[in-house]
Amino acid sequence: MEYAEYREYDAVGLAELVAGRKVSAGELLEVAIARAEAVNGKLNAIVAPMYEVARERARGELGGPFAGVPFLLKDLHQEYAGVPTGSGCRALGRVPATEHSAVVRRWLDAGLVVFGKTNTPEFGAKGVTEPEVNGPTRNPWDLSRTPGGSSGGAAAAVAAGILPVAGASDGGGSIRIPAAACGLVGLKPGRGLVPAGPRFAEYLHGAATDGVLSRTVRDSAAMLDVLTAAPDPGGPFLAARPELGYAELARTAPGRLRIGFTTRSPLGTAVDPEAVAAVTDAAELLASLGHEVEPAETGIDEHRLAFDFLTMWCTQLAYTVAEVRRTTGAGPDGFELDTHLLAAAGRKVTAPDYYAAHDRWNGYSRALAAFHRRYDLLLTPTLARPPVRIGELDTPRPVRAVAKVLLRLGLLGTLAGTGAWEKAVIENLAATPFTQLANITGRPAVSLPTYRTAQDLPLGVQFVGPLGGEGLLLALATQLEQARPWHRTAALDD
Amino acid sequence: MEYAEYREYDAVGLAELVAGRKVSAGELLEVAIARAEAVNGKLNAIVAPMYEVARERARGELGGPFAGVPFLLKDLHQEYAGVPTGSGCRALGRVPATEHSAVVRRWLDAGLVVFGKTNTPEFGAKGVTEPEVNGPTRNPWDLSRTPGGSSGGAAAAVAAGILPVAGASDGGGSIRIPAAACGLVGLKPGRGLVPAGPRFAEYLHGAATDGVLSRTVRDSAAMLDVLTAAPDPGGPFLAARPELGYAELARTAPGRLRIGFTTRSPLGTAVDPEAVAAVTDAAELLASLGHEVEPAETGIDEHRLAFDFLTMWCTQLAYTVAEVRRTTGAGPDGFELDTHLLAAAGRKVTAPDYYAAHDRWNGYSRALAAFHRRYDLLLTPTLARPPVRIGELDTPRPVRAVAKVLLRLGLLGTLAGTGAWEKAVIENLAATPFTQLANITGRPAVSLPTYRTAQDLPLGVQFVGPLGGEGLLLALATQLEQARPWHRTAALDD
Repeated sequence: MEYAEYREYDAVGLAELVAGRKVSAGELLEVAIARAEAVNGKLNAIVAPMYEVARERARGELGGPFAGVPFLLKDLHQEYAGVPTGSGCRALGRVPATEHSAVVRRWLDAGLVVFGKTNTPEFGAKGVTEPEVNGPTRNPWDLSRTPGGSSGGAAAAVAAGILPVAGASDGGGSIRIPAAACGLVGLKPGRGLVPAGPRFAEYLHGAATDGVLSRTVRDSAAMLDVLTAAPDPGGPFLAARPELGYAELARTAPGRLRIGFTTRSPLGTAVDPEAVAAVTDAAELLASLGHEVEPAETGIDEHRLAFDFLTMWCTQLAYTVAEVRRTTGAGPDGFELDTHLLAAAGRKVTAPDYYAAHDRWNGYSRALAAFHRRYDLLLTPTLARPPVRIGELDTPRPVRAVAKVLLRLGLLGTLAGTGAWEKAVIENLAATPFTQLANITGRPAVSLPTYRTAQDLPLGVQFVGPLGGEGLLLALATQLEQARPWHRTAALDD
Repeated sequence: MEYAEYREYDAVGLAELVAGRKVSAGELLEVAIARAEAVNGKLNAIVAPMYEVARERARGELGGPFAGVPFLLKDLHQEYAGVPTGSGCRALGRVPATEHSAVVRRWLDAGLVVFGKTNTPEFGAKGVTEPEVNGPTRNPWDLSRTPGGSSGGAAAAVAAGILPVAGASDGGGSIRIPAAACGLVGLKPGRGLVPAGPRFAEYLHGAATDGVLSRTVRDSAAMLDVLTAAPDPGGPFLAARPELGYAELARTAPGRLRIGFTTRSPLGTAVDPEAVAAVTDAAELLASLGHEVEPAETGIDEHRLAFDFLTMWCTQLAYTVAEVRRTTGAGPDGFELDTHLLAAAGRKVTAPDYYAAHDRWNGYSRALAAFHRRYDLLLTPTLARPPVRIGELDTPRPVRAVAKVLLRLGLLGTLAGTGAWEKAVIENLAATPFTQLANITGRPAVSLPTYRTAQDLPLGVQFVGPLGGEGLLLALATQLEQARPWHRTAALDD
């Protein structure tokens, strides 16, 4: 098969070809590898090729709904037995994983052929994908810009046509941000639907979840069916799954929906006119499809939410750094300075303050539920501005210089958590202030690539659904995809 | 209706009488109130009578499966609008709740007539029910002994025939411990099934849940149907509920089960021969019913689990004390010394250590899931010894004396968390070391009153099920109840 033909299919389509014996798993794999080899030098999307593992697997008997379709894992949490999980961290990347993660097992059970792992910022802690250990991943629509993060490697690979759908995860926007930056569909499923573990616990108290990035809605839907195929008997609770599968729900007409939209940054920070235009454009499109669309606010104190999110995030990083040091024996040099800055802030948090921050999640969830009594969905920009340039969100040089000295002296905690630190963090969050709400409240949310900027850069819009609203989000996404068939546009195709 | 007749019915039975117009809600209420007035002086089970609220309600139109049945709330978290929630705390008890808790709304929707609130240790933090502000609740089977805790008031009221089923909650054993001590059925539902909120978040990260204490299995089953009647759109996630109702599942034959049992204390502490005998007796009964029963261990490091549990518990108390002080303006005198001791330990925990403790829950859950691949259920004693005497678990006088001085000096933290402190805590936990496992892992567990000691004291046994195992636990409970009809025995009936 030629690349030009391969590129026309989504994963469901490729699986049909394999099932109908029109093409073999091995042939598809070689097309994917050839495309990866052709573009990865520009993108740095794949950081750990697994070509031989994949070729071996493609030669075997494969069953499942995606039998024979090439696939990439995110190099964070998505562990593949025998292959190191790098997590964008210098201290890791040498110790092979002892067993597959639950999601990886499900992807393999579905017949996917894993041929590599994609780049991520250190521990997935940023909305850009520029880890020191691997170097930055670039946006295939504009190589000077970020593909977003933390699933930036996955997004770049999919947008550049290496494969139609790739593994991703989202703890603060890490599926939706790169979806928006790369013109893809990015669904963050609701809390607990997709199994965590076995090695890693429900991450960030369930704010984070695994998922995929795809070009078509039906790929995201069919993949959610794969990821939720059975309950996880070892999980912390039993999540409700709908009676109908997501693929079927995605094919259902969404009906006439009430959609409330906002373009105001929850942090009070600036929102680029292009991001506003993306929402206005989507609102018009929705109205033309018969939906009821109007400006609306959740009434949630999202500034406080952002700091509660940060409290969790920094705490989790402090824990992760300590764990990695304990298990690998790495010194401070094993981690990036920015990670140290966040972890140092985490170490200053007391457990009762942490508990208090988590307790406030209840209020956010209930306020959002009240919003969803009035509106089926919340519509916001996914990003507050078009994808930034590589390096643009780096911690400023003077801060880095001071932080380096403090780190060496063991005094980094004196900087972390200060007003200057908080200002820097908020400035960083200002590019992506819309996504954390769905993580903290455990609600499903999707970024859809309905809009392109004047410079022809993708810029998605986000829909946030109620608990159990995955099917509704997918149904609406299908309708929008039909109205504006985004996946025909290809990046890096000369 | 006479009390002697009232006492013969469970809540399902009373509801049938009301529905069949054989008795009115008002008549039932007066019998319940009369019984409460007759025995509460001995028991101190009800600490906040709501007789007039109840009489008003009983005069109105009542619908639902439990229409007209008298009911008591636990005076912790189960908020009733307009009535203060005391939580066994001096600093509280004056501020009326602004709205019903979600569970209270469900109980009211089911037609129950709430006529009071039952005693609980301060913030539910003990396995006995002896708050300074209300004084101790006594066990109706032996007034010198504890009914257990923290739902001790509820258990004493049900065991003494004031009502057939009462509101309870369980964050470390607080339904199962008093069930075992008072000869009742005590089911702790799995994590997230029963809604929290709206004011309080999922408590202890979901380790805690509301539920009931009942004399019959079918009451516990029908009440779980009421509590899980609908999803909670404001909750942190959507929990799976079975297709069939629990009342129906409870009537299903359990089939031939594989049951692994242990009588070894997870803390390595002593287990009373009577507690061992309770399990041996249950194992024999189960075998006689055709089940496969054998000794088995979970392989979980439950000593570590106990300390991880303590970390969460102390943190939560530190947070709660801070919140109560913030909202009521109370000083240190508003709280018991034991609460201060635990809270001081909680304040010494850092957020990353707290995160680490919570992260280890994943390991316990997965280990227990592995056990449940081999066995349908785990059988243990509920209590390590028969109900202790009132005051027996008080913090020793010398420790209290030192702690009081340190508290006044603001130096309580120097004692909390020390070896001596840990020893005292373990000694306290040693009476109830079997129950926390189900809380941390979010698994359902039930205490059943299959056994009575040589002194004719109740002493339950505990069954721990897998995720989603509520129906199985109830089915087995029905079978055991038929084999050994415990609810015909009544306490305090002269």
